[in-house]
Amino acid sequence: MKPVFIDVDTGVDDALALLFALQSPLLDVIGISTVSGNVHVDHTYRNTLAVLDIAQAPDIPVARGMDAPLIRPLHTAAEIHGESGFGDIQLPEVVRNGVEEHGVDLMIRKVKESPEPVTLILLGPLTNMAVALKKEPSIQDNIRELVIMGGAGAKGGNVTPVAEFNIYVDPDAAHVVFSSGLPIRLVTWDVCMQAVLHPEENMQLKETQTPVAQYAYRLIQFLRDNNDETFLCDPSAVCAVIDESVIQTEVLPVEVETQEGLTRGMTIIDVRPFLQVDPADPRPKLQVAMNIERERFSQLFIQTLLQQG
Amino acid sequence: MKPVFIDVDTGVDDALALLFALQSPLLDVIGISTVSGNVHVDHTYRNTLAVLDIAQAPDIPVARGMDAPLIRPLHTAAEIHGESGFGDIQLPEVVRNGVEEHGVDLMIRKVKESPEPVTLILLGPLTNMAVALKKEPSIQDNIRELVIMGGAGAKGGNVTPVAEFNIYVDPDAAHVVFSSGLPIRLVTWDVCMQAVLHPEENMQLKETQTPVAQYAYRLIQFLRDNNDETFLCDPSAVCAVIDESVIQTEVLPVEVETQEGLTRGMTIIDVRPFLQVDPADPRPKLQVAMNIERERFSQLFIQTLLQQG
Amino acid sequence: MKPVFIDVDTGVDDALALLFALQSPLLDVIGISTVSGNVHVDHTYRNTLAVLDIAQAPDIPVARGMDAPLIRPLHTAAEIHGESGFGDIQLPEVVRNGVEEHGVDLMIRKVKESPEPVTLILLGPLTNMAVALKKEPSIQDNIRELVIMGGAGAKGGNVTPVAEFNIYVDPDAAHVVFSSGLPIRLVTWDVCMQAVLHPEENMQLKETQTPVAQYAYRLIQFLRDNNDETFLCDPSAVCAVIDESVIQTEVLPVEVETQEGLTRGMTIIDVRPFLQVDPADPRPKLQVAMNIERERFSQLFIQTLLQQG
Amino acid sequence: MKPVFIDVDTGVDDALALLFALQSPLLDVIGISTVSGNVHVDHTYRNTLAVLDIAQAPDIPVARGMDAPLIRPLHTAAEIHGESGFGDIQLPEVVRNGVEEHGVDLMIRKVKESPEPVTLILLGPLTNMAVALKKEPSIQDNIRELVIMGGAGAKGGNVTPVAEFNIYVDPDAAHVVFSSGLPIRLVTWDVCMQAVLHPEENMQLKETQTPVAQYAYRLIQFLRDNNDETFLCDPSAVCAVIDESVIQTEVLPVEVETQEGLTRGMTIIDVRPFLQVDPADPRPKLQVAMNIERERFSQLFIQTLLQQG
Repeated sequence: MKPVFIDVDTGVDDALALLFALQSPLLDVIGISTVSGNVHVDHTYRNTLAVLDIAQAPDIPVARGMDAPLIRPLHTAAEIHGESGFGDIQLPEVVRNGVEEHGVDLMIRKVKESPEPVTLILLGPLTNMAVALKKEPSIQDNIRELVIMGGAGAKGGNVTPVAEFNIYVDPDAAHVVFSSGLPIRLVTWDVCMQAVLHPEENMQLKETQTPVAQYAYRLIQFLRDNNDETFLCDPSAVCAVIDESVIQTEVLPVEVETQEGLTRGMTIIDVRPFLQVDPADPRPKLQVAMNIERERFSQLFIQTLLQQG
Repeated sequence: MKPVFIDVDTGVDDALALLFALQSPLLDVIGISTVSGNVHVDHTYRNTLAVLDIAQAPDIPVARGMDAPLIRPLHTAAEIHGESGFGDIQLPEVVRNGVEEHGVDLMIRKVKESPEPVTLILLGPLTNMAVALKKEPSIQDNIRELVIMGGAGAKGGNVTPVAEFNIYVDPDAAHVVFSSGLPIRLVTWDVCMQAVLHPEENMQLKETQTPVAQYAYRLIQFLRDNNDETFLCDPSAVCAVIDESVIQTEVLPVEVETQEGLTRGMTIIDVRPFLQVDPADPRPKLQVAMNIERERFSQLFIQTLLQQG
Repeated sequence: MKPVFIDVDTGVDDALALLFALQSPLLDVIGISTVSGNVHVDHTYRNTLAVLDIAQAPDIPVARGMDAPLIRPLHTAAEIHGESGFGDIQLPEVVRNGVEEHGVDLMIRKVKESPEPVTLILLGPLTNMAVALKKEPSIQDNIRELVIMGGAGAKGGNVTPVAEFNIYVDPDAAHVVFSSGLPIRLVTWDVCMQAVLHPEENMQLKETQTPVAQYAYRLIQFLRDNNDETFLCDPSAVCAVIDESVIQTEVLPVEVETQEGLTRGMTIIDVRPFLQVDPADPRPKLQVAMNIERERFSQLFIQTLLQQG
Repeated sequence: MKPVFIDVDTGVDDALALLFALQSPLLDVIGISTVSGNVHVDHTYRNTLAVLDIAQAPDIPVARGMDAPLIRPLHTAAEIHGESGFGDIQLPEVVRNGVEEHGVDLMIRKVKESPEPVTLILLGPLTNMAVALKKEPSIQDNIRELVIMGGAGAKGGNVTPVAEFNIYVDPDAAHVVFSSGLPIRLVTWDVCMQAVLHPEENMQLKETQTPVAQYAYRLIQFLRDNNDETFLCDPSAVCAVIDESVIQTEVLPVEVETQEGLTRGMTIIDVRPFLQVDPADPRPKLQVAMNIERERFSQLFIQTLLQQG
């Protein structure tokens, strides 16, 4: 099993990604940090604990992380996700406790303590990751890869014409993370739009009487009710770790716009045809998702969620 | 015949566009201004006169315009086009004279004097147009449309990952022009890459013994020798005026990044799916080229150039 | 007599400067261009003609120039100066006419035609000057010096903590002008605050029955009524041309902030002690006013205005 | 005794400030964090321990903090201070040990644990402070005041015409700290230039045979040898805590420029005369040093250093 540490700003999309990761027999979730993003960390922390309760997940340490971006004021998406991050879906009282440790410190400690290099799955603004890398640069030595849901390519962003939410909220953190030199896979918003789940696929969940399947069904219905189509962004990033071959990538130079203005938070992905990237080009080279094989993704997602715990 | 005024930074690409426009029975070229861009205006001015000589064009007034962008230092593409703008192609001594008037003033006067609204075809950095609009705002009343070769969409730019040359060189001018409220059609670089000319199409020119066809043939050969493919950017903008139906457009909000940095000169075209543009949205709405019908374009181009003067 | 060309955005302060220049036996005012600044050029043009009428000035060509900054939208100070630029002071019907020529073109022509190098006194945003230099770079050869009222040093600005109005309104134009390589004297706002006129000095004007003295008296009273102290900014720049020795300067590197944000329009004057300016330092070196000898200034100003035409 | 926590990037100037603080009977130094600034934190950490050894200071916890600014690459002043931060002054082998805890965490813990509100004296780039405030916002409740050596007013900066080193190096951190709402006293570089020590004052140290006096004498000689005058910046900030009355301040709006470019790291202090600061003005209001009483400062400094431990 691959050791993974997950950083989340748990709303509906992150909840599905957490269930996907927890159910996968291939992943060993060694810890979870929470961050402000979709909603404030007060909510994302509590939401995350509730999801683990529902999943009857074993005792995975969950910690509260940064409550605002590195520098800028927090910009949430509470107008979309509701104040709690789950719209009108009621979550049960949380039974389990998180840990006292700060999210950043949990991330640092878990990475350092792991006997083998850790994959980090980053599903919110990159604030926790950036602070961890700045506070304890030595963790880089025991990181296998960062898999990030964030950024936008040719089809544009979701907050502005060119910026996706996670990067837009904390572009400075994204800049720090992208420039770290770590291997990074970037699953961008516009490519995630290929990770569509069909209604009949969701019905398979409905018909299965496990808490995970039932709960996942309701979350997906919620997404369906609020959008024209149901595509699963955060689960796509988890998919990229469970089975790399489902999401095809290209190695491309990527920079983040940190200036305020029209292009704040843009991921500038250099897709120019005929471009020969000079090895001395100082720009970060990321593996950028280009295509998701929808069938394989949805199969993997549904089959994993249908598994008995 | 439609009255058109053309602004050029004549290198090979502009020369082909000029020949196309001059040969077209549908266009009445009422004046030409030159600007620094591909190369310095000293060269683009002389080159333009030479092209008119070759085309045995009637006496169209040609004027020397701005020799540098509104604010920033000039950045040419002389490393690609050669110092003169025509690589190693020798131009004959120029016989005709231009006019003494400044390019900006010629543009202003010709627009004002025209009995019917003028279409401006803008094939270089937008410096002349911006100064004309700022110096004499009243010309807007007699402008039918601006057709601009410039900007870049989803497939990226040619100077930077996100910026096309004409806009990159003078983003401030582009901002002034785009914000003017005038009707604008934007034929972007990445869409122009569809305006490919096949070798056998060029052969039709070779076999025709008019000076225009012969000269056009040589210019196209030059492009072919220097690129993997031969696509015709500036002629695409002329095509958009001769026959609108060849180039499909969408009305989209477009802004120009004027800040220095990673996104200087980017045309931020809002292609977000599901976007409902609010009528109160203050951003300029431009007709942005989305597709060029290659066959029809190349037919129109070749047939027009084959015509006897 | 020194040939001077004056560029104004005539409100009260410019009016006093014009009277000062017109009355001076040492200056030959060869032309005047008007620009948008304190108020729109529609008003500054008319105001300037009215001032010349009142001064019974000879027929000096006056032209309407740029009506907005190079790139940015116009930001006036009409909330201070009133819509017309003269608060509640009524101006008589204008008798004389301006010229048809554009302000920028008048400036270019007058400089080119002058038998000796021209000093330009620039009392508003630098838009006209910037366009003239960009449109006809060759005029630099016949310019002796630019004397500019604008910018702010250690004591801060008047629009923002660090920016003075004329530069703030069109920082791009200021950047173009400062970078031109021309000799420039900069009379900054904070130093102008030393050019105080005492009430008893103004009384000398009141007691003199010439139209110029009477009108100047009223304008100064207007300033007094609207401020704690009466200091004369635009007249300081004229003073710097009539008698250089009244205003002490230092040669210092000066740059203009053109970015939007906290420091837009700041004149970054390098006053660091111990600084050895490297001859290879590419920054413009301007003669920056450091001190105005108040007594000498006010004497010169009053005596000049008291002169019989 | 006032509990103080000190954050340093120990070079010569910080060493003098540390001795000053440690010797003062009015201050209780409860902890020290180190940061990259003048030189890398590897050196500032070791240097700080060495200074405590020399001072025969009691066991004060010293921790290694952030090794680079929040976002930007580290820019040191090693070309001035030497790689080690002490020029050619040899430091003895360090005997004492620091703590394992990260500097940011030590700062957080010490502030939280203190029975009375803590004053933080911040003598380097504000990275540690910013991360502490972001990581654990609740510490604000037990902070009495931040006293910062940093920024520049009317007389200009030391890195650029407008920026002082500590703020220039990490303007983002300064922005976070200034915007925190905490009470802040800012002892700017240009005002520190008043904190001159005369040669005869330094001789008093030379003639006193305590390790602290001897060592301080050498450090000051080093400053003298490398500058035209000897003024003590970091000790000025300590002085502001020991005796507030020595340094006069004004409450002024202060913002930090975080954009790259001409004004990066500028502290924009609003000194406009006639300005009435609106209570609703959202800008941080800081107590900005305006004047240092040199005699009193140097007396206090020398007398404190002459004290027997």
